[in-house]
Amino acid sequence: MTSPTGSTEIIGILGGMGPAATADFYAKLVSMTPGRSDQDHLRTVIWSDPTIPDRTEALLGDGPDPTPWLLNGSRVLREAGATVIAIPCNTAHAFVPRIADHVGLPIVHMIGEVARHLATLRPAVSTVGLLATTGTVHAGLYQERFGRYGIHLVLPDPSQQDHVMTAIRDVKAGQHGLAGVSLADAAQELITRGAQAIIAGCTEIPLGLPADALGLPLVDPAVVLARALVRRARAA
Amino acid sequence: MTSPTGSTEIIGILGGMGPAATADFYAKLVSMTPGRSDQDHLRTVIWSDPTIPDRTEALLGDGPDPTPWLLNGSRVLREAGATVIAIPCNTAHAFVPRIADHVGLPIVHMIGEVARHLATLRPAVSTVGLLATTGTVHAGLYQERFGRYGIHLVLPDPSQQDHVMTAIRDVKAGQHGLAGVSLADAAQELITRGAQAIIAGCTEIPLGLPADALGLPLVDPAVVLARALVRRARAA
Repeated sequence: MTSPTGSTEIIGILGGMGPAATADFYAKLVSMTPGRSDQDHLRTVIWSDPTIPDRTEALLGDGPDPTPWLLNGSRVLREAGATVIAIPCNTAHAFVPRIADHVGLPIVHMIGEVARHLATLRPAVSTVGLLATTGTVHAGLYQERFGRYGIHLVLPDPSQQDHVMTAIRDVKAGQHGLAGVSLADAAQELITRGAQAIIAGCTEIPLGLPADALGLPLVDPAVVLARALVRRARAA
Repeated sequence: MTSPTGSTEIIGILGGMGPAATADFYAKLVSMTPGRSDQDHLRTVIWSDPTIPDRTEALLGDGPDPTPWLLNGSRVLREAGATVIAIPCNTAHAFVPRIADHVGLPIVHMIGEVARHLATLRPAVSTVGLLATTGTVHAGLYQERFGRYGIHLVLPDPSQQDHVMTAIRDVKAGQHGLAGVSLADAAQELITRGAQAIIAGCTEIPLGLPADALGLPLVDPAVVLARALVRRARAA
């Protein structure tokens, strides 16, 4: 039952963080796969367990460690036949070092792919603003990867960061309109401080902030990850 | 790792028919689940194998039988822990009688749920138009279930049915705009012939024909199925 496109890859999506972002990510993966019929698309298995503890709360020391849930989901995906794992949740990437050696499958690192993508946009883009969860910011996930490529990062000040986190929770609660205003405000402040592109660094953000809301590039890590998976699968 | 909502249900989605419709179905399931945070949502596992042979071609005797692919996907979902199976593809329901006894899990029957839903709309709605694949029409899936409830069904004439099938293939190829015109035309003809509601009886159709395009109810079986799954999970 090999794909007629010749790819033996089976994409494993470790999702549920949150569930709407998982659905959105899979839609993006499908729309980025070139094809004229169903049969041109990639086989995919998705484990979406929204009961996994909140990643930001764990990183701030306020909640249980989600690592056992991530390991369990990875096991389900591997047993289902997945050949590669994608995690469409920025904050969950803080836990990748804890699971990578136990998963038995390669993980395509979303934040690493974003850094590689932005490196191709230099010198036009050298300073980038980040909208992300407080967990992602505190864990330094973007800071570390971007440092390797010499990309300068600007972050919201603490009070704006609180608004961004509230907006992300609003999206998770289905209140997209409310969230859009706060996210656009926070982005504008980063632009004033020199950002030449904004990273929608939480998979909920593109659900609240449309790609054309800012007048400068809004980088969606889910799109970058989907593109990397399609490229990899077509090579497989 | 039980859901805090108390549901022990794990939804198994047998998808990939087509992949965009699977992403759309999962988004609908998430949006119909009441909740304020990720953790209120249902655990879900999705097997999306778009390499499964075309269901309409098989039903018209022009292609291989997809039954082995459906059985394989059901096995993957069961082994991943699914407690119930949903198949967001109308045409694939022609093969449900061949797999039901081998799956080891209940299947929530999408077309049966649509018939039950429409029965609640009588007497306001007693005649319903069907837009579906030629495979679904030939297999008599809606005719059989609707007959049980005394709902009268109107179908496109053979030339209009060809246009509907072309529109469905256009959606699968990402040509949504083209498809919308043909689908709206076919729906209008069914309305002229007495239809008081139209069933978007292929999961690709709502991707090409917006819910508000007709001025009378457009029943989306994916929404009806999602609602039935949420109801079931909350009772579990």
